[in-house]
Amino acid sequence: MSAGRRAPGRRPGESGTRAAIGEAARIQFASFGYHGATIRGIAAAADVDPALIHHYYGTKEALFADAMRLPVVPSEMLTAALANRPDGDTRIGAHLVRTALTLWESDALKDTFVGLMRSAVTSEQAAVMLREFISDTILTTVAKATGLDERWNPAEAEFRASLVATQMLGLALTRLVLGLPAVALATVDELAATVGPSVDRYLTEDIGLPARPGSGRHR
Amino acid sequence: MSAGRRAPGRRPGESGTRAAIGEAARIQFASFGYHGATIRGIAAAADVDPALIHHYYGTKEALFADAMRLPVVPSEMLTAALANRPDGDTRIGAHLVRTALTLWESDALKDTFVGLMRSAVTSEQAAVMLREFISDTILTTVAKATGLDERWNPAEAEFRASLVATQMLGLALTRLVLGLPAVALATVDELAATVGPSVDRYLTEDIGLPARPGSGRHR
Repeated sequence: MSAGRRAPGRRPGESGTRAAIGEAARIQFASFGYHGATIRGIAAAADVDPALIHHYYGTKEALFADAMRLPVVPSEMLTAALANRPDGDTRIGAHLVRTALTLWESDALKDTFVGLMRSAVTSEQAAVMLREFISDTILTTVAKATGLDERWNPAEAEFRASLVATQMLGLALTRLVLGLPAVALATVDELAATVGPSVDRYLTEDIGLPARPGSGRHR
Repeated sequence: MSAGRRAPGRRPGESGTRAAIGEAARIQFASFGYHGATIRGIAAAADVDPALIHHYYGTKEALFADAMRLPVVPSEMLTAALANRPDGDTRIGAHLVRTALTLWESDALKDTFVGLMRSAVTSEQAAVMLREFISDTILTTVAKATGLDERWNPAEAEFRASLVATQMLGLALTRLVLGLPAVALATVDELAATVGPSVDRYLTEDIGLPARPGSGRHR
């Protein structure tokens, strides 16, 4: 479907305008990455006022989520889910694993999530987009919701959040994409109980990071 | 290049025969998975005697490795590398991380490994093949080389080896494919030191697996 620029005078209603913005956003995010794409650039490509995009979406992330056809804004959903953990449950790792698996496997998100992983693995352009999106929003959200950013300096918080990402994305890859039997057949409870403490290691424990003189990674 | 079946009387020399076997093997592994493909079936498709394939390759895995253009037989390489760990180094997790990263990032293997991951993520056929290959050879090799199979019953050993796979493949995905900055820029030493103990948890420690009555997962 080649959307193209609409002919003058055929200005559609709100749903048409949103569709045009979504289409422009997909192209701009793919072309310039999550960092590089701007609301201003997307507005120009969709031939609308930037203020309208702010009005409709509020944030760049919400626009991205809509453009990628995600049914939720990931960082909002993640923040809410992580805030909502059982009283006295100090094991945030298990809660994070449970939350992520429940989201990824929900009817609303499953196909989209696996589709995003597929495109990121096959297209360098999509990889840049997903990498920047994860760095800018997911890692930051996880760092904030888990207290990483209070406990460690920014470089170490980023490194630790990225280690969490290695474990979580590996879980997604083996369970949802490869379907490695023991992981695919395990219950969410089993994975939360067994993988959660590895996540806790990355979030809070001494992870044996070798000293790196002058790197600023340690306090 | 459409190889096709060669005309009778044009039986090529050894290198041509091996190329024909490799081509037949690629097709059979893709069509029937790693389990389902047989030396006999591949021999029939390549129009050679099965004994010749045994003679050239020895094992199904070696044939698979050749068909996938891997410069090494993964389980042999892995067994050798894991056996070769420094005296008194009880931290096999760090050694496993170092060994895997070194292999994956070697000039000989890097493109092939990333290519295998890409195809497994995009093609269900390739996913089945890689999943079965990992289950049949890599997990078994890791279980044997790390003592998993002596320490736990078969079901728990498989589950634990699969948890190791979630962490290791997640590391490969974020470092080699997505290029998440903090993981991509870390040194092999840093990743071995920080991720290794999570692997050790899966191999040897109490991982908090919930009791599963009658599952036989626990001793």
